[in-house]
Amino acid sequence: MTERIQQIESEFRQFVKKIEDYKQALAVLAWDSRTGAPKKGIVQRSEVIGTLSSEVFALSTAEEMASFLGELREESVYNNLSEITQKTVDECHKDFERNVKIPKDEFKEYVMLQSQSEALWEEAKEKADFEMFRPNLEKLVAFKKKFVGYWGYEKHPYNTLLDDYEPGVFVETIDKVFGELRDQLIPLVKGVTESTHQPKTDFLFKTFPKENQKALNLDILTEIGYDFEAGRLDETVHPFAIGINPNDVRVTTKYNENDFRVAIFGTIHECGHALYEQNISQDLIGTPLCDGTSMGIHESQSLFWEKFVGQNVGFWERNYDLMKKHSSGQFDNVSLEDFYFAINESKPSLIRIESDELTYCLHIIIRYELEKALMEDKITVKELPQAWNDKMEEYLGIRPSHDGEGVLQDVHWSFGAFGYFPSYALGYIYAAQIKEAMLADLPYFDELVRNGDFAPIREWLTTHVHQYGKMKQPGEIIKNITGGGIDSKPLVRYLEEKYRRLYKF
Amino acid sequence: MTERIQQIESEFRQFVKKIEDYKQALAVLAWDSRTGAPKKGIVQRSEVIGTLSSEVFALSTAEEMASFLGELREESVYNNLSEITQKTVDECHKDFERNVKIPKDEFKEYVMLQSQSEALWEEAKEKADFEMFRPNLEKLVAFKKKFVGYWGYEKHPYNTLLDDYEPGVFVETIDKVFGELRDQLIPLVKGVTESTHQPKTDFLFKTFPKENQKALNLDILTEIGYDFEAGRLDETVHPFAIGINPNDVRVTTKYNENDFRVAIFGTIHECGHALYEQNISQDLIGTPLCDGTSMGIHESQSLFWEKFVGQNVGFWERNYDLMKKHSSGQFDNVSLEDFYFAINESKPSLIRIESDELTYCLHIIIRYELEKALMEDKITVKELPQAWNDKMEEYLGIRPSHDGEGVLQDVHWSFGAFGYFPSYALGYIYAAQIKEAMLADLPYFDELVRNGDFAPIREWLTTHVHQYGKMKQPGEIIKNITGGGIDSKPLVRYLEEKYRRLYKF
Repeated sequence: MTERIQQIESEFRQFVKKIEDYKQALAVLAWDSRTGAPKKGIVQRSEVIGTLSSEVFALSTAEEMASFLGELREESVYNNLSEITQKTVDECHKDFERNVKIPKDEFKEYVMLQSQSEALWEEAKEKADFEMFRPNLEKLVAFKKKFVGYWGYEKHPYNTLLDDYEPGVFVETIDKVFGELRDQLIPLVKGVTESTHQPKTDFLFKTFPKENQKALNLDILTEIGYDFEAGRLDETVHPFAIGINPNDVRVTTKYNENDFRVAIFGTIHECGHALYEQNISQDLIGTPLCDGTSMGIHESQSLFWEKFVGQNVGFWERNYDLMKKHSSGQFDNVSLEDFYFAINESKPSLIRIESDELTYCLHIIIRYELEKALMEDKITVKELPQAWNDKMEEYLGIRPSHDGEGVLQDVHWSFGAFGYFPSYALGYIYAAQIKEAMLADLPYFDELVRNGDFAPIREWLTTHVHQYGKMKQPGEIIKNITGGGIDSKPLVRYLEEKYRRLYKF
Repeated sequence: MTERIQQIESEFRQFVKKIEDYKQALAVLAWDSRTGAPKKGIVQRSEVIGTLSSEVFALSTAEEMASFLGELREESVYNNLSEITQKTVDECHKDFERNVKIPKDEFKEYVMLQSQSEALWEEAKEKADFEMFRPNLEKLVAFKKKFVGYWGYEKHPYNTLLDDYEPGVFVETIDKVFGELRDQLIPLVKGVTESTHQPKTDFLFKTFPKENQKALNLDILTEIGYDFEAGRLDETVHPFAIGINPNDVRVTTKYNENDFRVAIFGTIHECGHALYEQNISQDLIGTPLCDGTSMGIHESQSLFWEKFVGQNVGFWERNYDLMKKHSSGQFDNVSLEDFYFAINESKPSLIRIESDELTYCLHIIIRYELEKALMEDKITVKELPQAWNDKMEEYLGIRPSHDGEGVLQDVHWSFGAFGYFPSYALGYIYAAQIKEAMLADLPYFDELVRNGDFAPIREWLTTHVHQYGKMKQPGEIIKNITGGGIDSKPLVRYLEEKYRRLYKF
């Protein structure tokens, strides 16, 4: 019996490894397409990506997969598998169920709708014309509702959508933590807006030559502990991090010569994602577990480094001179205090991706509330623009003048990504919980940052988060670290303390 | 009947396209591995390449392929196929036969031997220790002989090896053209060596900063007509060109700050390869015909641009000022005449890849004669070093002092590439034949080069060579262009005229 189990376990792992090898090839193709693949090659490249993706889909839903899962999920067999194989079986089974439950024709129609909608959204956004995009958005919402019907749901249809990005996290929890967060943030944002103590920021926008920024970014990445032997830094219009496997995790950045913050904080952010993927256990290579456990936990890692390290005052006590050395004199008459206040400027703004850490979560909460209302049929697509603008006014005190800077600003819905947005705010919440828990083990955290001694911080994150990949769900990771559940209080404490101090209110 | 044929033709083309899509993915992975993939990712990368390559092999030798070929190769069906499908059937059939005729175990053993031998060769070369490498080389030769036995051969066993690189070209022809070439080159090399008129070359080796060389190389590639929207230029230790598809053909170069020739002539050389691949007919995409027709014809294109354009005096009449502009004064007191003589310096040397256009073919002829003798059992592996050194002395008038600069200098044999070397010299021969034929249509060739008017030259090459991909064999291409066969006389005429003039003898 045991021998038979070992044999089928090994065959299954071989089968899964093949899928994962294809996914690695797809990741390299994706990286290449985004970093400088020749323009004229686009059509051929989509063909190749299409062929490989179809193969991944075919293998993931093959008879062979079904038969592996059938055999391996039998209790007497399952209990004799290694833990990694067990979780691999779970993951493959989840994926299998998702993929086979949608009728092929409908899925094909949906994929075609997605690809039309992205281009249409772009045009509608530019023209600030919601009506132009509305019919497609209505179809996308209808498809998602139908899919939820096929997949089934517990308690709330939105839970099934959340499961794609934040497995094990449900509407009930999010309602609670987002509600508390919103109620605490609104007065804080008001306090900042009304404060008479505002930062000087003119020096942020002076010319910082690209080559000098590059040198600075390389220095900072190296100091933080990004492993350049297992990665590389390139330049793209939309920065990203991509993990091909833990030994090859690449980051990109973009340089704005009139605003150095774009590159430096963007690079640190992507580096946070990359450190996660570089430190996933090598034992998970060749399984679908060799990846971040959720969008939210992934975002917690990028935000941890961007906010709690990169915007830590100690970080700049250490690196302000390095920054000055690389720049062309723009900070010569700027005190560290003024610099620090400037890079932490907060004010309500219309565009999510340009907003700051204090206001960001409110942008997300608006999207979450609207998505949920759509799924509950409490609002129609037609009513979205008005509802959006009202919430912006209520939460942030500003109102978009047109839908291009309102409901049309984000690409996500155009490819049907409902349930994705909450992860961004969960990332902030997790990051603050992780930071508080870390302080118990590393009480001299600020000192470590000030000394550039990042190894203990990286090791702590590896031990408690990174190494597991998808072996633990987000809720389990938070539970293990904090002893409790998802909680917005640490984030509120951090923001409250920081912004009251900065803006003196 | 016709409908049935159309259906099977379309299914076959779909099947073949899948293989070709995988090959494109493999080409991107290869490019990535060579241009800056992180060091630590090497092991995983080989796994991924292994998985995809195995899939390509599996599909190329699958039952399904056998059944397609069986049906499509029936005369009544074959005659009703499009020409592209016919040639695709031929190509797939050739590949199928090659692959299925070798027993799997033997092939596996051979692949393992290859990968061991490359590392062993590297060590043996460094230590100049032929005996260290000999046992492996003997096994590699024995395998190749055995494989030829499985594949069968006509007239000469070496013909079967040639077929991998130069289909349709046989020992009989090569013996004739190489023999004539050798007999003409030996006295020419002697003339150059003994001439009292030698170039000054010291200015070649002054510092030319890398960034300036990069700018020069980009200018020259653009002028020649390399399409940057269908390609990109990167930097690698070993320069290469790689065609992923005609819309994505990439080149690399390397910069030596103390010898600008390495980059500029290397870049033009790789650009010649790239122009070939960029101009293959788009109709051939998705078939194995979308590639250079042979190693020799490929090399003829790189050499055509490197030698007949890049080392054309008119090219430098036009570009010497541009070169001076980018450099840091190293040519300020050098006349164009002296510069031109210097970049065309010729002298016998021990290392093939460092040799010049006059002596190069003799290096190849030595390797060809030895490979053929090995296959004919006229020489043993043990006798190779002595035979090598004797031929070097006979043909080039110099003798290696150890095997590291003699018989061990090239990597090719370590991975079993016997039959490959002749293509290099055939490339020179073809290039000269092509150049002479082109002159009949473009009598003002030198004028075009002097004016930087390369479009007519590119168009001529596209019409007569590039567009066909593998639709025509090398012999057919030469026949169509020249009306005759492979002939070394145009090359001899070119070299004779050029070097007698330069070296005044």
